[in-house]
Amino acid sequence: MSNRKFLGICGSLREASRNMGLLRCAGEVMPEGAELAIADISELPFYVEGREKTEAVSIFLEQVKSADGLVLAVPEYNYSVAPALKNALDWASREKGDILAGKPAAMMGAGGGMGTSRAQYHLRQTCVYLDIRVLNRPEVFSNAFSDAFTENGSVSDTEEGKKLRAKVAAQMKALCEM
Amino acid sequence: MSNRKFLGICGSLREASRNMGLLRCAGEVMPEGAELAIADISELPFYVEGREKTEAVSIFLEQVKSADGLVLAVPEYNYSVAPALKNALDWASREKGDILAGKPAAMMGAGGGMGTSRAQYHLRQTCVYLDIRVLNRPEVFSNAFSDAFTENGSVSDTEEGKKLRAKVAAQMKALCEM
Amino acid sequence: MSNRKFLGICGSLREASRNMGLLRCAGEVMPEGAELAIADISELPFYVEGREKTEAVSIFLEQVKSADGLVLAVPEYNYSVAPALKNALDWASREKGDILAGKPAAMMGAGGGMGTSRAQYHLRQTCVYLDIRVLNRPEVFSNAFSDAFTENGSVSDTEEGKKLRAKVAAQMKALCEM
Amino acid sequence: MSNRKFLGICGSLREASRNMGLLRCAGEVMPEGAELAIADISELPFYVEGREKTEAVSIFLEQVKSADGLVLAVPEYNYSVAPALKNALDWASREKGDILAGKPAAMMGAGGGMGTSRAQYHLRQTCVYLDIRVLNRPEVFSNAFSDAFTENGSVSDTEEGKKLRAKVAAQMKALCEM
Repeated sequence: MSNRKFLGICGSLREASRNMGLLRCAGEVMPEGAELAIADISELPFYVEGREKTEAVSIFLEQVKSADGLVLAVPEYNYSVAPALKNALDWASREKGDILAGKPAAMMGAGGGMGTSRAQYHLRQTCVYLDIRVLNRPEVFSNAFSDAFTENGSVSDTEEGKKLRAKVAAQMKALCEM
Repeated sequence: MSNRKFLGICGSLREASRNMGLLRCAGEVMPEGAELAIADISELPFYVEGREKTEAVSIFLEQVKSADGLVLAVPEYNYSVAPALKNALDWASREKGDILAGKPAAMMGAGGGMGTSRAQYHLRQTCVYLDIRVLNRPEVFSNAFSDAFTENGSVSDTEEGKKLRAKVAAQMKALCEM
Repeated sequence: MSNRKFLGICGSLREASRNMGLLRCAGEVMPEGAELAIADISELPFYVEGREKTEAVSIFLEQVKSADGLVLAVPEYNYSVAPALKNALDWASREKGDILAGKPAAMMGAGGGMGTSRAQYHLRQTCVYLDIRVLNRPEVFSNAFSDAFTENGSVSDTEEGKKLRAKVAAQMKALCEM
Repeated sequence: MSNRKFLGICGSLREASRNMGLLRCAGEVMPEGAELAIADISELPFYVEGREKTEAVSIFLEQVKSADGLVLAVPEYNYSVAPALKNALDWASREKGDILAGKPAAMMGAGGGMGTSRAQYHLRQTCVYLDIRVLNRPEVFSNAFSDAFTENGSVSDTEEGKKLRAKVAAQMKALCEM
């Protein structure tokens, strides 16, 4: 149905990241025809006005430009957004052509008891400025310390893991219908 | 009077940063006896769980530990906090000993028409978690594109610049009385 | 073109409200075919679970149901939303049938120097839960104490007033294209 | 020790409110010497500029003036603050003499899975403007639908209820030490 290509961006750079696991899960449950590529933002330097784009930046910007929409995996650090994710969006925001504007997007996150909600609401405010069209429902908040995740950060096959997978699937379906 | 030593942290890494200019101004107008050192966060890598501290990180953490309070210069990028500033606080938050907790702090910012207010409110939420005691009043919001600033980012001697300097002085006075 | 009927809701109950003036202006500049009715929320009681709907509540809920979208005039009280506006949405949220979900909406506000931005960002978070689809751009922030407004709260014919009217018109156009 | 008199304000007007139950609990666990009175805000009209104070408003304002600090029970309605609570603070904010400024305060809330956190962060922003000094730690988030509460809304004697009582006690102790 949908032939849309989405780009996943994960704010956590650690190994076995649960947030990266959420993105992999999103890729697996995408509606037929839709695809999810996952960006590598681990080598992006801090955005500084006037700083030249590195190769990693250029590759990332091309991925953003060619994507039909975004899937944002949003860790929460100290009640707000992880700097690596915000920084990736900051780089994209400064590229000519307002390349983020109008793109549909979905957010998900794995964190403590609040499931990264505090970070997600901050990031939604950033998306207002960038004119990213963030899906309202369903929201995906998950507990990184539950058995919904395996040790390598993937969504597990436990009861909890299956529920989470179903929620991610519902979100991806809604994203494709935006 | 006050013998307190404050640490200034500026979220902008660009040359001639107005936010850095605000910090210099804060240092100049500090009440007698109080001092403001300014941290260099330009070499901090992104915080990643398990990543080893670099020398720049260690130096920064020592500065935080020995400071009696913080002065945060808060640029606004895309309606939220600049990653470099958030990242510096994230590093400090993971150091043993809860080193930020209980410190008084003040926020100021130079940006567009809203004076970085959107970023400052997000950062205040982070400070709740870190138990940083942020001064409520006066808030300092300034327009980076006004003639309150010189070309090298310093607070100017124009009418606007003098008003801004007075506001920063009032904030530093209130900070020292916390 | 657009035959859509929008419902305007104003959070200020005072006479000569500038926020109400913004709504009147929005009605005047609506694209051809679109219409704006303005709700009367002055008689709504506080929502309390189990409290029976008054006639004013029932009338308001019918207006919401039959509207194709919303135009929210958002005053800022103490850095957040005016209770009367939030309360109106709270009443609508408890009506059977999820009557707000999926409706497009635009926000505007007249306030102090920040133009009610702080209140608008809070209200946007409420709209996430209610699945109201709030327009990202353009945002409308206006200074209630400027000569963009006449004494009775209407948008004026001064230079400032004309700029504001153009901004409101651009927003209504974008709303009709959602 | 502490002879301070605190004023509790509850944003929920419903019978058997869990948020009111939290306030009663706070009163019971107050450190020796400290006292908690609970305001009745059920009869406050919406604040409107120029509207005359009713008797209920006057009584409430006197209670605020004579209180040494505030304990705010914060329900969450649609991801933000309950209008009745915000409205009470709005009335107090317009009284001559900046009567809220400088008062220490603590927040607690009973709600869904996030424990009213979204509402509490919004209310914290309001407190910046009003110069209310809100305690950072510990935060009190509780699940209104758990067995931490009895049917009449009181904190229960179950395991969950005892944990919640201990958390409220820790918060009241910290409040008295501000």
